[in-house]
Order: sequence, then C-alpha cells, then structure tokens
Amino acid sequence: MSSTGTPDPDNAWLSDVELLEIRRRLPILYVEAIPVRIDGLGQVTEVGILLRASVTGEMARALVSGRVMYGETLREALFRHLEKDLGPMAFPQLPTSPVPFQVAEYFPMPGISQFTDDRQHAVSLAYVIPVTGTCEPRQDALEITWMSPAEAASFTVSEELEGGRSALLRAGLASVGMLP
Amino acid sequence: MSSTGTPDPDNAWLSDVELLEIRRRLPILYVEAIPVRIDGLGQVTEVGILLRASVTGEMARALVSGRVMYGETLREALFRHLEKDLGPMAFPQLPTSPVPFQVAEYFPMPGISQFTDDRQHAVSLAYVIPVTGTCEPRQDALEITWMSPAEAASFTVSEELEGGRSALLRAGLASVGMLP
Amino acid sequence: MSSTGTPDPDNAWLSDVELLEIRRRLPILYVEAIPVRIDGLGQVTEVGILLRASVTGEMARALVSGRVMYGETLREALFRHLEKDLGPMAFPQLPTSPVPFQVAEYFPMPGISQFTDDRQHAVSLAYVIPVTGTCEPRQDALEITWMSPAEAASFTVSEELEGGRSALLRAGLASVGMLP
Amino acid sequence: MSSTGTPDPDNAWLSDVELLEIRRRLPILYVEAIPVRIDGLGQVTEVGILLRASVTGEMARALVSGRVMYGETLREALFRHLEKDLGPMAFPQLPTSPVPFQVAEYFPMPGISQFTDDRQHAVSLAYVIPVTGTCEPRQDALEITWMSPAEAASFTVSEELEGGRSALLRAGLASVGMLP
Repeated sequence: MSSTGTPDPDNAWLSDVELLEIRRRLPILYVEAIPVRIDGLGQVTEVGILLRASVTGEMARALVSGRVMYGETLREALFRHLEKDLGPMAFPQLPTSPVPFQVAEYFPMPGISQFTDDRQHAVSLAYVIPVTGTCEPRQDALEITWMSPAEAASFTVSEELEGGRSALLRAGLASVGMLP
Repeated sequence: MSSTGTPDPDNAWLSDVELLEIRRRLPILYVEAIPVRIDGLGQVTEVGILLRASVTGEMARALVSGRVMYGETLREALFRHLEKDLGPMAFPQLPTSPVPFQVAEYFPMPGISQFTDDRQHAVSLAYVIPVTGTCEPRQDALEITWMSPAEAASFTVSEELEGGRSALLRAGLASVGMLP
Repeated sequence: MSSTGTPDPDNAWLSDVELLEIRRRLPILYVEAIPVRIDGLGQVTEVGILLRASVTGEMARALVSGRVMYGETLREALFRHLEKDLGPMAFPQLPTSPVPFQVAEYFPMPGISQFTDDRQHAVSLAYVIPVTGTCEPRQDALEITWMSPAEAASFTVSEELEGGRSALLRAGLASVGMLP
Repeated sequence: MSSTGTPDPDNAWLSDVELLEIRRRLPILYVEAIPVRIDGLGQVTEVGILLRASVTGEMARALVSGRVMYGETLREALFRHLEKDLGPMAFPQLPTSPVPFQVAEYFPMPGISQFTDDRQHAVSLAYVIPVTGTCEPRQDALEITWMSPAEAASFTVSEELEGGRSALLRAGLASVGMLP
C-alpha cells in the first residue's frame, strides 16, 4: 500500500509484501460474480463482461472478482466487489443462498484444475448476479459489455478471458439454463 | 369446472373428473414457493406463511403451491401461483436458475417419503422466492403472516402445515443458511 | 403395450392410447441420467453416451431417460431406467440428494425452451450418475460409448443428441466442473 | 509443529506461530464432511458423528473438518481429512461436484453468522459424504457414533456440537431430504 495515497481496499488488512508472502503459503479465498440482466420471469437475457486493462496495459475481458477480507462475510465481499467494478448504481440482487454455482480452484501450476493464477492458489466461490440498475465501471474496469448468453458462451469471448474463466462463465450460463 | 362460473385456472385444460382420474395414474407436477423478505445483502429476514381455509372450512397454514399446466414453463407456473396467492403487487423475484432447493415427493400412502397428499402422487419443485412489494392474499388464502426464520422453523408453525410441508419449510430455510 | 405380450415397463399403469391422450393434457415427469466413470477422488474421467435405434430405425445418441410412474419415487425411477439401459451389473451410485443438476423442460413447440419433444410437454430432472460396474446396454440401447468429458462436450456428439439434449449434457459436465 | 517430530499434517506448510498470525489477517479455507451410510438407492440411512477430546480434555461431538493446504485441491483436502478422522478403510465416495451443500462462515465474534470459531475467521465448504467401508477413528477422534437422521437432527446431539455446527448438520440433513 502506498504511503501517499488511496489504499487498495483489497489489501486493507495486509501490506503488499505480507500478502505476497502469504499467497505462497495458503489458499486465498475469492468471490466471483457474473453480472446478468433478467426478464420479469427471472430468465437471463444479457450477460455483462468487463473490459479491463492489466498492469502491463494490455486489455482483457474479466468477471467481477476479488478477495474476501478478514471479518467480512461472503455477501459483503460480493457487494463490495460488485460496487467497485460496476459502480454504486448497479443495484445487484445478491443471492438468498451463499452456495455458489461453482467453486473454481486456481493454481499457479497448470494441469491441476481448469483454472490457473500465476500469483497464488486461490479458491473462488462464483455466483450469477442479476443487476437492475445502471452499471458504470470504475477503477481499472474500463467498460462493461452486455451480450446475449449465446455470445457470452462463444469462442471469441472465451479466448479473451484469463486463467480459464471462460469455463467458469460457461458453467455459470449452464447453471441458469442458458448454455447453448 | 362449474358450467356457470369462473374456471379454476388450475384445471383449465382438464375437467375435474378427468383430473381426478389422471391423479390415480400419473405423478402430477407441482411448484411450491416460500415467499421471503430479504435485506440489502440478500439475506432472508422474514418468511411469509399463508393462512388458508380448507374445503371443510378448517384453517391451515400453507405455502404457495400449485400445478404446472400443459404448455406452461416452470417460471410461468411459479409466477401464476405467486400472483394468485399473494396478489398482483407482490413483485416476486423469480430465480435465475430453475433448479429447486428441494424436490418434494408427495404420496397418497404414508411411509414412502416425508410428504403425503391424499388426492394424488405429486412431485413438487420448491423454491425460496424474495418478494419486494405488497402482499394481498386473494382467493382462498385469507392472510399472509410474516415471521422471523426462527419462528418459521419452530414447532408451532410446523404443526399447522399439512402433508409434511414443515420439513419442506425447514429445508428451504436451511438452503438459505437460516435454519437455527 | 404390444399385443404379443411383453409389457413396456414405462406404460405399466396406462395403455398406449391413454398415455397418448394424457400427453396432450399434462406435463409428464421424467428423470434423465448421464452415466459417468469417476476416479478415486470423485472426479469424472469418462462419460457414457448411449447409441440407440429410433422407431424409424435411425441411429441416435441418447442419455438414460424415462418416465416416473405412479407410486414410484424418483430414486426408483432412476434406478429402473439405469438398469433398463445399462444392464443389471452397472452398479450406479444414486445421489444422496434428489435435487437435480438441471430441470429440462421439453415442449412440442420450439422456441419456448432449449428442449423439444414432438410427443409431449415433459419436465425432466437430470442427474450425473457414477457407475462402478459393467454396462451392457439392453433393449433398444445398442451400445454405450465411453468418452472423455472434452469429447462429450464437443460438437460432433452434440449434433447426434436429440431434442436439445446436447445442452443438457454440457450443463451436466459443467455441474461437475468438467466443461471445457 | 511439535519438537518431538510428528508433524501436524494441517500445519505442514506453516509453523504454528505463522499460522496463528495469519489467522488474524485472512479468512482461512476449510472443508467439512458429514459421513453417512446410504441404502442401495442412495438414501441416507445413518449419520456418523465423531466424539473428540478437546485440548482441555473435554469431550465434544464433531464433524470431519480441516484446513485446505496450499497446492491441495478441495477433493484432496476432503480425502485427507476423512482418512485422518475415519481411518484408511472408510472408503468415502467423494462427490462428483465440488459445490458444497452449504458454505459455513465462522467468525471469532458472535452475531455475524450462525457459526463461531474463537481462533479465526474460517470459511468452510461442507459436504455430505457416503462411506462404504469400516470407520476406525484415529488421532484425536475417539469414536464415531452412527445414528438415524432423526437422532442426528435432535436437540441432544446439537447441544454437543461446537461453534454452531448443529445448524450445519441440520442443513446437511435437509440437503439430502432427511431433516424431519
């Protein structure tokens, strides 16, 4: 965390060096969300995918994602990351059940699971989250693109999602009966 | 269906006699809903239980429940029965996924499962449904009582639910992490 | 039921004519199963797809599938259809929970859902079922082909599954974390 | 880790002091399992509850439970803790899906969720696991008691489970349709 400026909310309880150290010792708990728009009967009509600039300046597609902090409930973590990535007017409908549609296990070494993450061993609880308001991506998320479930499941988008998240996106679509 | 008057929407495609006959030959598909109120983070704060007069005039507690008709989707059936029992201003949030929290199997003969129904072999897909508007029970549902999850799980309410639905109610509370 | 004698177990409580009639009046309840082989940690390694001759003599891929009969539990229906299609030595591990990974709604008219069935409106509860024994397809199922999850998810197999069941197969793979 | 030699498998990648420190900074990921016996149709017939001596020598009921280590999959963690608590001949049937029936959030401070843990903020993925072999508790688990689902759900057993795990046990029973 820089001494001058805005603290990274994800690191609030840990310095960057400490977190770096711990990331090599323990699985880190994450939540991930696929923002969707639904019709009056609850059926998913559109899927929101973020466009994000990586640290190296490259553009990449992304899901809403972030760490669960000490003392924070899963719901609070979901809400915080949704607000961080979609803005304060997205009005997400958090699920009544904390059971995710999938548990994604990210490993620094490939071949253990479908998912990889260079930095750490992360275990991520993933949810499909309807949003009813206006999404205005903030921080490093430059833009949110809304597309049909079929487009979201397509190869082109998949390619641009990192760490195997295309499989997670497709599993999310399948969980709501929307995977072609 | 009476020749004089309002058709029972549940029987729209079948006469009463036909339905009676079929009920002894085939499992009948139902949907059931536990209406709940939630807080801003999606956590269930209150559970709505119907008070209903049976055909014999006796009062009994009930969940929102009804048959799925020919040509109707599960979502449409859920919406129709929620509107029938809670009125047009309840604004239920139908689930993004059609997977129920429990499948309740009702048999006319006791001992096969937790659930019984004198009239038929019914298989019911059960959902916990947040409602955001005003509930005004219509038709034979006289009243909806809102109570805390702990009260809803308690013995007194359980006793008044028919056909083993107290177990279904408790399973619904458990599915949202609210069973004490 | 054929006039020569062998009763179709699926029609035991209804004549063909009666069933034909009812199929135009009520949604019919089905169970479907995707047979899989698993490793010692429960991870799916292979998926079994049936090869079946249709009434017109055409070959088609299929999942284990069949009607739930009056008085029969979902578990009994699952077991009966697994035994019918995979033989008595398949030793399927039925799930501890009756909650399916997906509810597939088949309509005679296209466009209502992902799934179609010329004959009827069917609602099908679908399960991924590990089998530990030897599968010897009986009756009209000519053969079971074992393939990797990736092959099962591929386009070629999908094309050969009827009524949109390729989407159901992919949703099943997704539910066990095996959809690429 | 004790100086006499036997490493605590739970602490293999961290010293006790380090773990103590981290437990105040990050949520720690756990898996928990409710061992059950099932009949030929997959229905739960018996539930296994451990009897365990705490560090102070007091006896308490417990579920199978333990930390997920760095580099370890959830399945591997489940298998390791089941073997540790039930012995090598229990032959647990690990689930095909890594999605838990419930996510239990344990906090050191009461009132945030149903679950508490003095030592840490732990997030636990909970599973109902059929075991088909012989259970011989090892290490600090002195005994496993098999009981009916109704007994397991009863108040007496609940009282003896720590940290609110009686609610987790009941949610597990509900998830397999066995909560009265």
